Amino acid sequence: MRFSKGRNFLFRIPEGRDFVEFINQFAKKNHVLIGTLSAIGTLRNPKVGYFEEDAGEYKVIPLKGTYEVVSLLGNVSIKDGEPFAHIHVALGDSEGRVYGGHLIEGEVFVAEVFIQELLGELLERKPQENGLSLWDEITL
Amino acid sequence: MRFSKGRNFLFRIPEGRDFVEFINQFAKKNHVLIGTLSAIGTLRNPKVGYFEEDAGEYKVIPLKGTYEVVSLLGNVSIKDGEPFAHIHVALGDSEGRVYGGHLIEGEVFVAEVFIQELLGELLERKPQENGLSLWDEITL
Amino acid sequence: MRFSKGRNFLFRIPEGRDFVEFINQFAKKNHVLIGTLSAIGTLRNPKVGYFEEDAGEYKVIPLKGTYEVVSLLGNVSIKDGEPFAHIHVALGDSEGRVYGGHLIEGEVFVAEVFIQELLGELLERKPQENGLSLWDEITL
Repeated sequence: MRFSKGRNFLFRIPEGRDFVEFINQFAKKNHVLIGTLSAIGTLRNPKVGYFEEDAGEYKVIPLKGTYEVVSLLGNVSIKDGEPFAHIHVALGDSEGRVYGGHLIEGEVFVAEVFIQELLGELLERKPQENGLSLWDEITL
Repeated sequence: MRFSKGRNFLFRIPEGRDFVEFINQFAKKNHVLIGTLSAIGTLRNPKVGYFEEDAGEYKVIPLKGTYEVVSLLGNVSIKDGEPFAHIHVALGDSEGRVYGGHLIEGEVFVAEVFIQELLGELLERKPQENGLSLWDEITL
Repeated sequence: MRFSKGRNFLFRIPEGRDFVEFINQFAKKNHVLIGTLSAIGTLRNPKVGYFEEDAGEYKVIPLKGTYEVVSLLGNVSIKDGEPFAHIHVALGDSEGRVYGGHLIEGEVFVAEVFIQELLGELLERKPQENGLSLWDEITL
């Protein structure tokens, strides 16, 4: 649960890349095993997910067109032995209306990303009965 | 206004706990007096507030059901002699529509939280005439 | 792309100031050349932008009244030789509905801001053919 600070990355993802795939590749290539991330920018045709507890899976909500990334927050930890980014996003349309959820995919028009690496005991996602992969809970 | 970095906590809140109450308890037990926080996850039946300046208090907006925590940002400082978390949240429903405001309460389904402790002169909330408790303003 | 950590600022902007202008002035006066920022609070009559690729400019969406700053994320880098803040915002109205985009302006009622300075090679915005000013893309 406690971590020390590692490297700090602030960068722009090339236009045309998928946001989620790029972050996962970035984490793998740079050996970022634990971290937090935030971003602003613009995505094309993003798909967001809403987790349906009864179904035990994400309902996919496809959004057509280009959206401002009003907010994007996430973290990096280990899933299936590899760095894995979990990302939530709020997206604004041309009228300023905001949609959002779990970010499944989205083509980058502009993406300015900050990744804060954390160092310490590995934080691992483990499959749960409810269909999600989660870290162990902490006790207080 | 200037702080040095303290401890970094990245963790999952147990299912069923109230998000706001848990963060306040976490801060007290771990002696986090100043800090910033962010989170993603899913909350059940959250209540958000909209501050009504004329009334000098928050209008409570109760949201029924389960919402993706699209964004959650906040800070910890001192109020009435104790660590106090001030949190704002954006919540996505099953259609991807987003609602939000000041987070009053919300039952955790999943909550992945990052807390960055800050060290320095105590930052204190003081009751204002408008009904809010705020830090002193800075001058520039 | 890699930076070390600089100073940490957590503060409240005086009521009545314009949020964007204040952050830019703060960065200049404190010589914050690179950094990230986040905030929560309340803004009056904010204007948000949606970038229209065909037009090569932001469509301005004026929002009347007072809004909770549900989320605010941004960064500071160099544009035209000076520190420049790029900020996106999600804003909640009195019914909890959320609007957002690129923050153009907004009068502060309350604004609690965290700025994390980053140190390293200057990160510079350069005018692009599409009408935006952007950092160089990274390759992976």
